[in-house]
Amino acid sequence: MQLTRQTANQRTDHVYDVLVVGGGAAGLSAGIYLQRSLLSTLIIDKGKARSSWVQELHNYLGLPPDTPGREVLKQGKTHYLSLEGEHLNGYVEDVTDEGETFAVRVRIGRTNPTYTVFRSRYLIAASGIIDHLPQLNNMQNVFEYAGHNLHVCLICDGYEMRDKRAGVFGSSESSLEAAFPLGWFTPYITVFTNGEFEVSSEFRHRLTQHGYRLVEQPIKQFLGENHQMSGVELADGSIEELDAGLVSMGSKYHADYLKNIDLEYEGGNLITDKVNRTSHPRIFAIGDLKVGMNQVVIAAADGAIAATQIWREIRRREGSRRSPIAINQAKERFNEAVLMKV
Amino acid sequence: MQLTRQTANQRTDHVYDVLVVGGGAAGLSAGIYLQRSLLSTLIIDKGKARSSWVQELHNYLGLPPDTPGREVLKQGKTHYLSLEGEHLNGYVEDVTDEGETFAVRVRIGRTNPTYTVFRSRYLIAASGIIDHLPQLNNMQNVFEYAGHNLHVCLICDGYEMRDKRAGVFGSSESSLEAAFPLGWFTPYITVFTNGEFEVSSEFRHRLTQHGYRLVEQPIKQFLGENHQMSGVELADGSIEELDAGLVSMGSKYHADYLKNIDLEYEGGNLITDKVNRTSHPRIFAIGDLKVGMNQVVIAAADGAIAATQIWREIRRREGSRRSPIAINQAKERFNEAVLMKV
Repeated sequence: MQLTRQTANQRTDHVYDVLVVGGGAAGLSAGIYLQRSLLSTLIIDKGKARSSWVQELHNYLGLPPDTPGREVLKQGKTHYLSLEGEHLNGYVEDVTDEGETFAVRVRIGRTNPTYTVFRSRYLIAASGIIDHLPQLNNMQNVFEYAGHNLHVCLICDGYEMRDKRAGVFGSSESSLEAAFPLGWFTPYITVFTNGEFEVSSEFRHRLTQHGYRLVEQPIKQFLGENHQMSGVELADGSIEELDAGLVSMGSKYHADYLKNIDLEYEGGNLITDKVNRTSHPRIFAIGDLKVGMNQVVIAAADGAIAATQIWREIRRREGSRRSPIAINQAKERFNEAVLMKV
Repeated sequence: MQLTRQTANQRTDHVYDVLVVGGGAAGLSAGIYLQRSLLSTLIIDKGKARSSWVQELHNYLGLPPDTPGREVLKQGKTHYLSLEGEHLNGYVEDVTDEGETFAVRVRIGRTNPTYTVFRSRYLIAASGIIDHLPQLNNMQNVFEYAGHNLHVCLICDGYEMRDKRAGVFGSSESSLEAAFPLGWFTPYITVFTNGEFEVSSEFRHRLTQHGYRLVEQPIKQFLGENHQMSGVELADGSIEELDAGLVSMGSKYHADYLKNIDLEYEGGNLITDKVNRTSHPRIFAIGDLKVGMNQVVIAAADGAIAATQIWREIRRREGSRRSPIAINQAKERFNEAVLMKV
């Protein structure tokens, strides 16, 4: 069920088995597995999952390689809702560990927002990351090409750049290291600093050795049409022609809501074990937010693994009694036992 | 390219980067990632991947929940071949570690088979498992329902059995343990030994406590129509009505071809690290053959992880030079350098 601002308030007395923060590939896959394990699940989604930017998902088994990321999310959400999973568009502000449960405070609505507190026994952090993009005066100019032929993921799209003239857009010298593995796919590489940082002479030397060009001027705008970037115009008006680009500027990690909970991180990523559990026994992290590769199919598998582990734990604690009929029978047996004692 | 018995013989001089044993979900996903990393790949598939038995894949993110397993495999194979991956229908007999390469002996064809030896730098074991099924005089009677409502995977299909009369078919007392987690989904459970083994009084007591029935007679045949099993007829002609079944008889592990290589196992499963590497540095194991959950989406993610790790290792060893143009340029630079020295 898709919750609204109104119906959300009717759920504040309910203790969900699992609250999932993030309705991207990881969160939806977890939700599907959780609902199929007869666990009550609420997914809170702020929208804009990283995969929704992907125009063509080229490497997901079972889908044609021109499938947009948003199609996977749409199908996944329909699937999850068909299993009676609950879903709410909102923004998770903070999480408080109450011992047996978590209290999860959610902001609903952008204008005149309201705040609702939900409770759950387990929490799955599936809120992901989002890539930093080049900061230009007109950001629409960047959004025009991002996810089309201005890529953010070498593993996903190196193949799409093979033997093309590719620009690498970095935010620091170390972020420009992406140029070297990109060299596996194409020798025609130009590296851009956007005039934002200095490059060491050692790094310059490595670029020269590899035959890569370095452009240190600020970028005025990306050029192109129909979402196909064809180059950049620099501050001095000169033009660098390109066939594709790779943005390598790091990411924003969507984990602010976990600030009150002591968890182990590696950089911005949550450290997890092989069942995707964080250092907190009832908090799992899946998808791009955890340490590991950022791939849609891996996020989906992460969801399956975490959901199944949570089911095992709840099942072992509660015993075999979650089917609706079984719950009624257990109640009857209990009542009979009480009557017999009387 | 789909290799034939004839064209396979033209590839015996080639050293593949990776040979993948098994063209199921794990192997095809690995193949897609490997080809997109510009690595040369050969998938050897004997057919009959476990997922090809799945009539409806209910929990795979991005696909409608009535998608047959074989559709995923078909789409995956088309995808892999579109990336110029090589594929051969054959049976891997054995693998010899030659130090830098593996020699992989493959039997091609069932009648008048021929044998071909392929070479690769890495090996991915993606050959999976297959479930043991109840052994009846007429196995066609079993195949009629297996993968329909005679299930083999509790995590996949427990939900499909909720509040239904379910039979659990085991091959040992310990295999019948599956009845208890199934109790999460339904209270109506009948456990069948098919007259093949004895059950301890302790186990009988546990079944009684849970309200489960025990049937120790041999099974004559499954009953039903249109692939929907409706019960079993026992040796004495009596009938047990059922709405669904769960076969829990263990699995055959398809790993005989690795017999000459010293690898670490847990039961029949290969032990792997977090990048899916076995105890051999150039052999990876993915999907159902490795320790872990047997789920299509996890197999697909396994393939992505192993393939990317192999790409990283080959790239680091070779440097940045795999694009076709880059290879030619490297040759030219080499020739120029030679000329200049002369």
